[in-house]
Amino acid sequence: MRRLFIPAALVTSLLCAGGATAEEAKSEKHAKAATQYRQSLFQLIRSNMGPLGGMAKGAIPYDTAVMETNGLRLEQLATMMSDYFDVDTRKFNVDTSAKPEIWQDFNTFSGKADDLIKAAQALQLAAQSGNEKAYRRAIGGVGATCKSCHDDFKAD
Amino acid sequence: MRRLFIPAALVTSLLCAGGATAEEAKSEKHAKAATQYRQSLFQLIRSNMGPLGGMAKGAIPYDTAVMETNGLRLEQLATMMSDYFDVDTRKFNVDTSAKPEIWQDFNTFSGKADDLIKAAQALQLAAQSGNEKAYRRAIGGVGATCKSCHDDFKAD
Repeated sequence: MRRLFIPAALVTSLLCAGGATAEEAKSEKHAKAATQYRQSLFQLIRSNMGPLGGMAKGAIPYDTAVMETNGLRLEQLATMMSDYFDVDTRKFNVDTSAKPEIWQDFNTFSGKADDLIKAAQALQLAAQSGNEKAYRRAIGGVGATCKSCHDDFKAD
Repeated sequence: MRRLFIPAALVTSLLCAGGATAEEAKSEKHAKAATQYRQSLFQLIRSNMGPLGGMAKGAIPYDTAVMETNGLRLEQLATMMSDYFDVDTRKFNVDTSAKPEIWQDFNTFSGKADDLIKAAQALQLAAQSGNEKAYRRAIGGVGATCKSCHDDFKAD
């Protein structure tokens, strides 16, 4: 019988293989702190997107150094995203635009964060291409991952 | 005479060789946005420090995976710090703990952000050492860079 014994932690890791997980906030204080942290993450994402959007619209000139730096930072911030959402705050009264669907389908949400990672990596490569059409396409690619996730998971 | 002509941009880059620079906020709106962004950066730094402080105090067990991940994230966030402070908000009415000394001596401030980068890198190495004393020392090293910068540049 001992050969059939599987530690609980292993079962969990098998069940969740390849997937991100979230757990319920322990208290309102915990939920509020988690909400503040994830909103801070989006502030930093926004601050990196701002100049990129301006470039794509032609409001400011393309700056490949900014495209590379902000592309790298967006990649780093996107890599943090699933962890900052791993506290499920649905049961608590927090001021949030995060829709409950995030925790109903955390794998899909997490996959959309992965899409941003890839788009931000592609932007860094495009910045090295010397091709303005590639710059614009890559910035558009990043923006599309934002929109795709907001459409499903962000309240208006 | 043409040989003596030096473009203004080059003069600026020579004057600032090796040093970070900051420029004045253009408006109160700009100053407020910059303040919100840098406060968001510190929220994320704080969220990474929390569990590390708990480990160093013995409140939670050492977790080398968390030490490595949070060490990397602190390194990434510290790398962003000088850029998030490059808007000098002293002339505007913003709710901030940032002391004016940051922009009076931006090179020193920026050097303290570099100290956090190094301490966060050392933490990632310590996490691989298998030595609890090294864990504790490295977490203490990160905390010391926080305190050193707060002592000079953060209002109580």
